[in-house]
Amino acid sequence: MEKVCVLGAGSTKYGRLDDSISDITIQASVDAIESAGIEPKEIKAGYISNVFGVADKQVHLGPVVMSNLGISERPSLSIESACGSGSVAFREAFTNVAGGFYDAVLVTGVEKVTHTGTEWTTTYFSYCSDFFYEGGAGASFPGLFASIARAYLNEFKATEEDLAEVAVKNHDNGLLNPKAHLRKKITVDDVMKSAVVASPLKLYDCCPFSDGASSVILCNESFAKEHNKDYIQVIGSGRGGSSAALQGRKHLTTIPSTKIAAEAAYKMAGVTPKDIDFAEVHDCFTIAEIIDTEDLGFFEKGQGVQAVREGQTKRNGQIPINPSGGLKSKGHPIGATGVGQIVEVYDQLTGKAGERTVKDVKIGLTQNFGATGASCAVHIFQSV
Amino acid sequence: MEKVCVLGAGSTKYGRLDDSISDITIQASVDAIESAGIEPKEIKAGYISNVFGVADKQVHLGPVVMSNLGISERPSLSIESACGSGSVAFREAFTNVAGGFYDAVLVTGVEKVTHTGTEWTTTYFSYCSDFFYEGGAGASFPGLFASIARAYLNEFKATEEDLAEVAVKNHDNGLLNPKAHLRKKITVDDVMKSAVVASPLKLYDCCPFSDGASSVILCNESFAKEHNKDYIQVIGSGRGGSSAALQGRKHLTTIPSTKIAAEAAYKMAGVTPKDIDFAEVHDCFTIAEIIDTEDLGFFEKGQGVQAVREGQTKRNGQIPINPSGGLKSKGHPIGATGVGQIVEVYDQLTGKAGERTVKDVKIGLTQNFGATGASCAVHIFQSV
Repeated sequence: MEKVCVLGAGSTKYGRLDDSISDITIQASVDAIESAGIEPKEIKAGYISNVFGVADKQVHLGPVVMSNLGISERPSLSIESACGSGSVAFREAFTNVAGGFYDAVLVTGVEKVTHTGTEWTTTYFSYCSDFFYEGGAGASFPGLFASIARAYLNEFKATEEDLAEVAVKNHDNGLLNPKAHLRKKITVDDVMKSAVVASPLKLYDCCPFSDGASSVILCNESFAKEHNKDYIQVIGSGRGGSSAALQGRKHLTTIPSTKIAAEAAYKMAGVTPKDIDFAEVHDCFTIAEIIDTEDLGFFEKGQGVQAVREGQTKRNGQIPINPSGGLKSKGHPIGATGVGQIVEVYDQLTGKAGERTVKDVKIGLTQNFGATGASCAVHIFQSV
Repeated sequence: MEKVCVLGAGSTKYGRLDDSISDITIQASVDAIESAGIEPKEIKAGYISNVFGVADKQVHLGPVVMSNLGISERPSLSIESACGSGSVAFREAFTNVAGGFYDAVLVTGVEKVTHTGTEWTTTYFSYCSDFFYEGGAGASFPGLFASIARAYLNEFKATEEDLAEVAVKNHDNGLLNPKAHLRKKITVDDVMKSAVVASPLKLYDCCPFSDGASSVILCNESFAKEHNKDYIQVIGSGRGGSSAALQGRKHLTTIPSTKIAAEAAYKMAGVTPKDIDFAEVHDCFTIAEIIDTEDLGFFEKGQGVQAVREGQTKRNGQIPINPSGGLKSKGHPIGATGVGQIVEVYDQLTGKAGERTVKDVKIGLTQNFGATGASCAVHIFQSV
């Protein structure tokens, strides 16, 4: 198996963007290509991750991107795994490079939905749930995560203020990220006073709907070495699944797919949770980040909330979580999110994270899931 | 690299189906699992191919399928490459098995759109073109393929009756396929008298909008041997791209992505076009089949039409094309089509094709493209 490296990374700003889905996909791709210091023709295949291309009237995005890069002859495809699409596209690119099928590929995630409005977006996003049992019965994602949050608060004596602390931390991080969607300092009081979306979750417990595109160049080690640019190595990759509908789970306070994916990634990397210096995790709602950090093994079950209280997950804490601002503040363009997490890890491990730099880091982890965690991918990266 | 085999195959009927997208995906998957004689838990990952899950309010189909198979813990994903989605999902499954990441995987393609009506379908399908230049300017696929057809008729002195012969042949084949959408004998006169859709293409030159799902089990050779069931080997796999918009092509009468994909597949398989005993090709419109057979190297450029006149591509001809009935008669549930072609090759090479059996075949080829051929995958299979 070839060693796989991330040679370059780029991103548009996340937020409400005016350009078309094709344009922002190309912008992020060009950014990553320039970051890697390669020519487009050196890219042998394109992996696009996207969920709702229909929102901006363009599916089959791969050929549009490849054509605009001047490499229309190269194969491409789109991958969808709900909000976990980006990390799954990255995983497929990883196995193809590791398996020797390509020496260098482009992975670009994108979403462009804000122009459709909240009703369209909430409705279409609910098609990512098990629609027969959930979306179709009125349970859209805020409601589903509210059930998870209520179960966690009850089981582990946590409070709504504890959840709010996650939002406050991630907004503090996002303030330092020039590409973040919501760059605004908030307090626990702001969160507590924001509109109830689905009790106990309030508006500021929820990530925003965002547009945006993120891109990385993935290659084998010899390709990376030839190009004389900063690169990081992918040392672990794991995937897993959970029952599509929440009612199929034994417990609401853990996400099985995260545990399965993490176990596989740790095994491949030959590391344990204690070896991880920082992580970008899937905080679509504040409760999700707390559960993620437990499922990833950073904290014992039920102790994630205590870690938040103690500031362990802050940028200067023992295990910084979401230094980018996370989905909560950086934003959540669903097809782009998983790739965007990897862009952050690349930036942190190659000293390009500017003001939000986490000090003395060598190993970073990303965890990105779809829906209520029906699908999940975990990747582990090491500086070289 | 592991040798990769198709151990089982299954399909729903193609046509207007009443069951939900989830239900037909599961039906085809169960059919393939039973054909392979395995237990669902032996499947290590699920590859779904689908384009317009939104039409039936279910994207993120993978976890729904895996959950219903009782293997919710397994990873899954959806792949989209317009009408070429099925073969691209198969390709990704192939590289993952060949690369040693999984020993056995499920590949299921599906589409469910007929309930939305012709206007919805034509509009949304046009999002698979380069929408800025094509769909958005009024050029939906019948118009784009009409441009291709007109160029071919002019350049090679072919006639509309020649195109009609392709439809007649494929309907003859589809009559013998119990799962085909349009099981109806037609004549050249019927085609010529059918409504003009986009001159020179008439209604009977066009494949139908179909619902349907097709599924195969892909595994490595040792897994296949252990299971003591009929299997075939994947000996060649290739992919390629073309400019997304037709205006970016030097010639309208050839599809670059097919040539690139075929060259790669022939090279991997160590065979030439003369070694292929029969093929399932992408005949979304009659003109496409003629061009495909030239691009695949079965005939010289401009000679594909002569081959049709001589009956060389009939089921008892020198190189039978689309014994299943093809997209034209079997139907075109776009996410399923590429997988459905492989189901036909599996059935033919393992003696399960019933009345439509092509005699004395050992090597079969599938070619499936997206849009006007902006993406294409070619696979070659051999009986064992």
